[in-house]
Amino acid sequence: MHLPPKALRWLADRIGPLGGDTPIAPDSLLAVPDSRLPDDARRALEAVVGVERVLTGRGDRLGRAGGLSYLDLLRRRNYGEIDVPDAVVLPADPEQVQLLLDACAAHDVGVVPFGGGTSVVGGVNALRGTKESVVALDLLRLDALVSVDPVSRLAVLQAGVRGPEAERLLAAHGLTLGHVPQSFERATIGGFAATRSAGQASSGYGRFDDMVAGVRMATPAGEWRLGVAPASAAGPDLRQLAIGSEGALGVITEVTLRVRPQPIEQRFEGFVLDGWERGAGAVRELAQSGLLADVTRLSDVDESEVSLSLNAGWKTAALRRYLSARGIGQPCLLVLGWHGATERRIALRRKETVRVLKAHGAVAVRPIGESWRKGRFHGPRQRDALLGLGVCVETLETAAHWSGIHRLRDAVRAALTTSLAANGHSPVVMCHISHAYETGASLYFTVLAARDDADPIGQWQRAKDAACEAISGVGTERGPFGTISHHHAVGVDHAPYLAAEVGELGVGVLAAVKRRVDPGGILNPGKLVKDGE
Amino acid sequence: MHLPPKALRWLADRIGPLGGDTPIAPDSLLAVPDSRLPDDARRALEAVVGVERVLTGRGDRLGRAGGLSYLDLLRRRNYGEIDVPDAVVLPADPEQVQLLLDACAAHDVGVVPFGGGTSVVGGVNALRGTKESVVALDLLRLDALVSVDPVSRLAVLQAGVRGPEAERLLAAHGLTLGHVPQSFERATIGGFAATRSAGQASSGYGRFDDMVAGVRMATPAGEWRLGVAPASAAGPDLRQLAIGSEGALGVITEVTLRVRPQPIEQRFEGFVLDGWERGAGAVRELAQSGLLADVTRLSDVDESEVSLSLNAGWKTAALRRYLSARGIGQPCLLVLGWHGATERRIALRRKETVRVLKAHGAVAVRPIGESWRKGRFHGPRQRDALLGLGVCVETLETAAHWSGIHRLRDAVRAALTTSLAANGHSPVVMCHISHAYETGASLYFTVLAARDDADPIGQWQRAKDAACEAISGVGTERGPFGTISHHHAVGVDHAPYLAAEVGELGVGVLAAVKRRVDPGGILNPGKLVKDGE
Repeated sequence: MHLPPKALRWLADRIGPLGGDTPIAPDSLLAVPDSRLPDDARRALEAVVGVERVLTGRGDRLGRAGGLSYLDLLRRRNYGEIDVPDAVVLPADPEQVQLLLDACAAHDVGVVPFGGGTSVVGGVNALRGTKESVVALDLLRLDALVSVDPVSRLAVLQAGVRGPEAERLLAAHGLTLGHVPQSFERATIGGFAATRSAGQASSGYGRFDDMVAGVRMATPAGEWRLGVAPASAAGPDLRQLAIGSEGALGVITEVTLRVRPQPIEQRFEGFVLDGWERGAGAVRELAQSGLLADVTRLSDVDESEVSLSLNAGWKTAALRRYLSARGIGQPCLLVLGWHGATERRIALRRKETVRVLKAHGAVAVRPIGESWRKGRFHGPRQRDALLGLGVCVETLETAAHWSGIHRLRDAVRAALTTSLAANGHSPVVMCHISHAYETGASLYFTVLAARDDADPIGQWQRAKDAACEAISGVGTERGPFGTISHHHAVGVDHAPYLAAEVGELGVGVLAAVKRRVDPGGILNPGKLVKDGE
Repeated sequence: MHLPPKALRWLADRIGPLGGDTPIAPDSLLAVPDSRLPDDARRALEAVVGVERVLTGRGDRLGRAGGLSYLDLLRRRNYGEIDVPDAVVLPADPEQVQLLLDACAAHDVGVVPFGGGTSVVGGVNALRGTKESVVALDLLRLDALVSVDPVSRLAVLQAGVRGPEAERLLAAHGLTLGHVPQSFERATIGGFAATRSAGQASSGYGRFDDMVAGVRMATPAGEWRLGVAPASAAGPDLRQLAIGSEGALGVITEVTLRVRPQPIEQRFEGFVLDGWERGAGAVRELAQSGLLADVTRLSDVDESEVSLSLNAGWKTAALRRYLSARGIGQPCLLVLGWHGATERRIALRRKETVRVLKAHGAVAVRPIGESWRKGRFHGPRQRDALLGLGVCVETLETAAHWSGIHRLRDAVRAALTTSLAANGHSPVVMCHISHAYETGASLYFTVLAARDDADPIGQWQRAKDAACEAISGVGTERGPFGTISHHHAVGVDHAPYLAAEVGELGVGVLAAVKRRVDPGGILNPGKLVKDGE
């Protein structure tokens, strides 16, 4: 992805001189230790999937070594060490997954379930924990639509199906899942479930956890199937232990998902509101009135400023004058997207929504919506490009109840700005609401700073720690201002902050569940719950 | 409650000669064993709440002995033994609840958390399990609205607040919870959460588990607080272990609830559809189109027949002719109720709904809705009256995905009918859908049979077992047709069927969680998970 010179000049003005160019290192230059998988373990795995489905080549192992966090990306540029699995195993179906877990348990081999490899929290890093060896269990061959129940609007998809393929398979039945996170192009059904993913259209289609009607999960203690009804009072909802289990409590092999008819019509629009508080107030009213569009995304002043400054397609100066004449001095962009069976249905919903927005002083700027839609999956590639040019670029997200979101935003912005200020420059810290609920909203931050080439990893780790402390209140007397993750999971990066949110008792309960389903502690070492907790 | 002679004649015609009159026995005639609470335990409890808040009188203990299942009601008529707690303890606040659990753990005393006492699954029966003594922990003094956050639309209510009081407290802030199960008048906030309750307006306001944003729970392993954001990906949603924990994993002391503005307007209407399949198809389309009224309740032909036969207020014969002339030979009554801020908003929603219903051949009979609304909390009293007249009368409920609801209904009806057929008469088995979802619906059965006075308890236990086996597939090769409970919890009665739904591994996980939070196994012995599982 090409970044225009104008954008780079703007950026250097804002954040100071960028770090050096840093291309992705070729695999051959990365340090990859030899496989430590013992021969007997290897033979046991081969007995399940066949010799050709247990891969120990350098490239195969590097291909399943970690995810897509900024630190992961730095490691691919030869900053820091990559945790590389000792082998990659490719099961064909849920039965083979179960047999592989049995074999790994018997040989005390760690197992990292691997889907799209898009974790931004270290969720698929090949940590060993207490194990001598660890394998990546790549679910790519579990790529089938198992069944469709059009009457109940349910579909069973295997865990390895990626976002676009899920939509293609369902489209043949006139159905859609409607789950489109930014990782859509690579991430998998199993990964969405294991991380409690949310997508760009979650305001309309619900979070992924809302879509999961049932799960099939392999565990070292045997296979576990959950979900027989649309709702149940048969004790605690144990599906909610599988959803968000992050590969640490089992390997999700199939997911039964609520699906919907493919929308015939789509409509994206943009509005501009005057200032963050006003914008958030409008989104809150929409959420609390049941009037949210399927896609609802409000940028704060800083993010809007970046959009307006960098988007070459808009006549920015003219737009600013237009907005200013309508009383908007602090533009906050709001993208709305509706899906619907007919234009009439969309128009009905839109009319009520626009009525609320007008009352909050919103000005319609239609192209903002379409422009956002076209670039909706570009984020990861833009980040790659910026990173290659010497920018420290990362995102993080949280959520809070409405009465606390301004406090939360202020605290995270202050933490990031203070931590990343250097040489008289401050970082760009942008924020948007991408998911709104009756009781609160998510906050998604994007940070751009000049990379400190002397210690790029430490630079970001300190900033991330500062942000996490601001969110969770770790190291303070107060409780958390928000959740440590609204839709990216715990992984390695957020594990130190989990107890602040769910209590030491909560962490202890997760550990107790893990001991029951994974007595040998082979599943995804170091993620979600650590050994010995 | 008075039952008209016409209704009784109709009933005797249908189900055969009723059993004998059976009034509720005065407390003095019921067998109440002496309290077995050891003196040192008693002193420890008194040290927390004061001498006058530890009750060991016969009437006080009987008042917290069991719930409102048919078997509970029979026991109050001196059929079978009542499990009576050894004492009743009345804490004033969450801190005292925690101290009481500590004291009970120290003295190895079982604890049955007690709210409204409306369990229909044995959930508050004072079983001892392995304990020498057991106390009822009555939460009636935890009756406060702790705080209101109008911006986030959240309210914190203590666990002992009953339905009407919750609404009264919230109404002072212009808010409502909108949770109105049939137990509304007696049941408590803590009980709703502990049992994953659903109410008559759950189609609009959501199930109680949808409303719970946070919980505060006392456990023998310490206090546990959960819920900091509207949604989270910080691992599994542990709130979902507290919701539905049935007093076996902790004592819920406070619940943070999503609230809504009080509706200004309400509108109830009735429609009639031709036959069950057609009616269910219409409700399914409404649910899958986002057009459900806040209250949506479809009766099958049998239940509609009873309504039409017994409701003295309607000109039944004329109504039948009217319906017949409109092509409805098998009337199924559909009650719809809308709540809204304005008549206009209700009218907008109603218009779309009626359009769908007309396409399914529905005929509007408006008084059906209002008539249902007036009698909406009468069920328990009607049941009491029938029971006193010698009728075996009970309800049970389940849920399934849409493609399976007819199979599920047929199976449960067949099981109940076969089990309760006697002397050439069949029972009346009625069914309605009270909760509809995109992917499925609940089925709520009401059974009327002539009571077998020789063995009334065995008569119903066999029928209930037959129904549970039909639902869960226990004793067969097939899996469950539906959930063992959609909104009444597990308690004692459904415990044998839980493994069929969540797996032996699921039961094992619950037991592992219980051991972590309640190592001494003092909490609600015999409910949800049994000792030693």
